[in-house]
Amino acid sequence: MNKITPQEFDIIARDQVPLVGYLGITIEHIGDGVATGRAPYRDEFLRPGGTVSGPVMMTLADFVMYAAVLGKIGRVELAVTTNLSINFLRRPSPRDVIAHARLIKVGKRLAVGEVDMFSEGEEDMIAHVAGTYSIPPL
Amino acid sequence: MNKITPQEFDIIARDQVPLVGYLGITIEHIGDGVATGRAPYRDEFLRPGGTVSGPVMMTLADFVMYAAVLGKIGRVELAVTTNLSINFLRRPSPRDVIAHARLIKVGKRLAVGEVDMFSEGEEDMIAHVAGTYSIPPL
Amino acid sequence: MNKITPQEFDIIARDQVPLVGYLGITIEHIGDGVATGRAPYRDEFLRPGGTVSGPVMMTLADFVMYAAVLGKIGRVELAVTTNLSINFLRRPSPRDVIAHARLIKVGKRLAVGEVDMFSEGEEDMIAHVAGTYSIPPL
Amino acid sequence: MNKITPQEFDIIARDQVPLVGYLGITIEHIGDGVATGRAPYRDEFLRPGGTVSGPVMMTLADFVMYAAVLGKIGRVELAVTTNLSINFLRRPSPRDVIAHARLIKVGKRLAVGEVDMFSEGEEDMIAHVAGTYSIPPL
Repeated sequence: MNKITPQEFDIIARDQVPLVGYLGITIEHIGDGVATGRAPYRDEFLRPGGTVSGPVMMTLADFVMYAAVLGKIGRVELAVTTNLSINFLRRPSPRDVIAHARLIKVGKRLAVGEVDMFSEGEEDMIAHVAGTYSIPPL
Repeated sequence: MNKITPQEFDIIARDQVPLVGYLGITIEHIGDGVATGRAPYRDEFLRPGGTVSGPVMMTLADFVMYAAVLGKIGRVELAVTTNLSINFLRRPSPRDVIAHARLIKVGKRLAVGEVDMFSEGEEDMIAHVAGTYSIPPL
Repeated sequence: MNKITPQEFDIIARDQVPLVGYLGITIEHIGDGVATGRAPYRDEFLRPGGTVSGPVMMTLADFVMYAAVLGKIGRVELAVTTNLSINFLRRPSPRDVIAHARLIKVGKRLAVGEVDMFSEGEEDMIAHVAGTYSIPPL
Repeated sequence: MNKITPQEFDIIARDQVPLVGYLGITIEHIGDGVATGRAPYRDEFLRPGGTVSGPVMMTLADFVMYAAVLGKIGRVELAVTTNLSINFLRRPSPRDVIAHARLIKVGKRLAVGEVDMFSEGEEDMIAHVAGTYSIPPL
């Protein structure tokens, strides 16, 4: 049983993280230690070269990992990223960006996860993220 | 002699990277392998806990490193980030975020740099970034 | 068809990378963009707390990724790591360490991969690595 | 006043971390949140291309950061690395490797630092590391 639904999570997001609202990011699925998010394409995402800019992908990655963490530990909104490392693999097409997060450790103090990112409808991974969230003491 | 000025750089940014415009990020200085940028505080930056959200800092870091790279190699706008790794050190106050980038390698194919980030008027570093830019063949 | 076998690779290793010989690391499998390596347990691996030390795991990870890269591009021995980022997830038992590398991008200039690491006979990942290799021009 | 001297630290190292003894790594200085270490050159360090292998540098970096952390918090030997990210900048000459660590955060649960690495007698940085140590509860 997950401790938060995508709907509950999107409400937190829209209320409390305006940047996520500006980018239109939504969480589509939260499962056991996993979550999927989407940044629906808009022209504001572009950077020189006609590809989606890196910060859009970093924002989506951070956010979908946050969803996976809260799915596991509940509404501990003060959980914060301590480290995020991203490898950009291919120039992303001007399309929706899809991100799949998967936690590889959920400890008492730290949760660690990975995010695989794709352009909608394409097969090759466009970016890969490893990240750590710090879980505050109860 | 730097190959681009902060003014020229901000024009590229505003024209071509809408997210940077939305966040109001500006480049204040470009020197020899260094650059300084600022994200002037606005309430849209916040996340739960009343601190500046991580993606705002990642966007600023990526952008100021891009300014340092273009200052060194000229208007090679297709230079792209290949790796960015950020450590969040302290909860940033609801204030302007200042970022100082410094390149530690500028090769033919890759440029590598660091970014130290601070809340305006405070002494302790709030985040540290290491990043790599890929420089396209001429 | 892979461009190098584990046997050929181990000979390169033993001849040319003495540290790998000292640690007794071997490559057990090289497939299409993947490789598996092992560091057979010895007491020299330990660190305070009776667990396997981080550098042993980093050495194994770097090496198994190198095997995956050479399996893909052939005996380009001057391929070098440009970035390696490791998350240590759990204290590894005093046992063999097993590492599975998987390339997520093989471009003309850069190859990027991940490594999942386990203690022999245990299920939980003990460390996760993302790394980038630079491929020299032909 | 530092909580451990280089001499005390080297004794811990030699007694408890055999790999460090094999590589001949020594700590030359521990100051307030900083430490300097050296890997005296030996032929065993080499990799194809005649340069010092990455794992030697990663081992030195991890170890000098450990020295800086213990200099700050005392003999808390169970402090462990949770994340280490290294950028290799230049092919290191077959010479001693020198590493300067500097902590940028020492919290209750995590310490974060950077390491700048050089070949003896040369000016350009050969590698840069960012790392995080987890400090066990008292």
